[in-house]
Amino acid sequence: MEQEKGILIVLSGPSGVGKGTVRKAIMKRDDHKLHYSISATTRKPREGERDGVDYFFKSKEEFQRMIQNNELLEWAEYVGNYYGTPVKYVNDTLTEGKDVLLEIEVQGALQVKTHFPEAVFIFLVPPSLAELQERIVNRGTEAEHMVKHRMLAAREEIELMDKYDYVVVNDKVDDACDKIKAIIIAEHLRKERIYYKYKKMLEVE
Amino acid sequence: MEQEKGILIVLSGPSGVGKGTVRKAIMKRDDHKLHYSISATTRKPREGERDGVDYFFKSKEEFQRMIQNNELLEWAEYVGNYYGTPVKYVNDTLTEGKDVLLEIEVQGALQVKTHFPEAVFIFLVPPSLAELQERIVNRGTEAEHMVKHRMLAAREEIELMDKYDYVVVNDKVDDACDKIKAIIIAEHLRKERIYYKYKKMLEVE
Repeated sequence: MEQEKGILIVLSGPSGVGKGTVRKAIMKRDDHKLHYSISATTRKPREGERDGVDYFFKSKEEFQRMIQNNELLEWAEYVGNYYGTPVKYVNDTLTEGKDVLLEIEVQGALQVKTHFPEAVFIFLVPPSLAELQERIVNRGTEAEHMVKHRMLAAREEIELMDKYDYVVVNDKVDDACDKIKAIIIAEHLRKERIYYKYKKMLEVE
Repeated sequence: MEQEKGILIVLSGPSGVGKGTVRKAIMKRDDHKLHYSISATTRKPREGERDGVDYFFKSKEEFQRMIQNNELLEWAEYVGNYYGTPVKYVNDTLTEGKDVLLEIEVQGALQVKTHFPEAVFIFLVPPSLAELQERIVNRGTEAEHMVKHRMLAAREEIELMDKYDYVVVNDKVDDACDKIKAIIIAEHLRKERIYYKYKKMLEVE
């Protein structure tokens, strides 16, 4: 029987909303065939982040070479750093019938949509923009002018929500994970993805 | 704040697939605001079925009066009996922000789609048509020519699957319920249904 392709799930949302935390929680509790696609980035590792686990940390020169060689599904410059998704892993894993989770910035997500319109786009939002600001301040790794810069970016990004399939509020990480799991289950049940199986069933009998 | 409307969930599928069993199981375990819309029918009650709980059992004359008075969201004649959905309960409940579950035959489901294109259409299928036949025989309430009639109808109905949003295999009732619950959760997260909330958030701050 023909191998059913996996689903590409793109998790995005404003910077500071907690994409990384939610992504890690999903991968930790995951009880089905979900694979995380590790991004490449030129930004400095934060405390506890490991190369090849959280990101592939690259120099600007290395990153630009990947762009030139068409090795990236998407890439973006965000607050002075590059972020991108190595394309080969995504394609190979989907072909094996496994789902792939991408956690990327909003600019990158929209690029993925042009290549994978059948992907599932999930937009993670904070309970309010005020809470977003608080989170960014409390992280304490950003200067004040950077916080303001991020807030402006967040307002713009929420306007971009319209390009996504689903909107999940990140009020509690566990609740957000439950919702994302439900989305993945539901997407596997969408008629478009499985109709052909039943057409075959009719042919056989 | 403006009351968000509930979602109309239409559960349908071939006769004999177990729509009633799955519907009862969902309603029994339901831990959120899901309301079952009781259908009207002219068919005879099966053992254990109660008027006003499983169906509103009507005479043909009563049913025809409901059709004439536009009191039905949809109605269909199926294997010599009428089935229909009283419209008022559905509209009132959705307006209160509660989800409504309809469990109806395939003909009726397609009529609902013309009135509620934003409803969520779930098609329940048996693991195989062979198993469908077995189930119908084992129910033992049908003569053999009726079984053949139902099998032909089922093949046609599977062709109709294409009109639905989701396809759920009823291999185990509990698994089917889990999947339908996931669909309902995911549908509440669809961008189309909640984007306006976030647009408002931007206006306020």
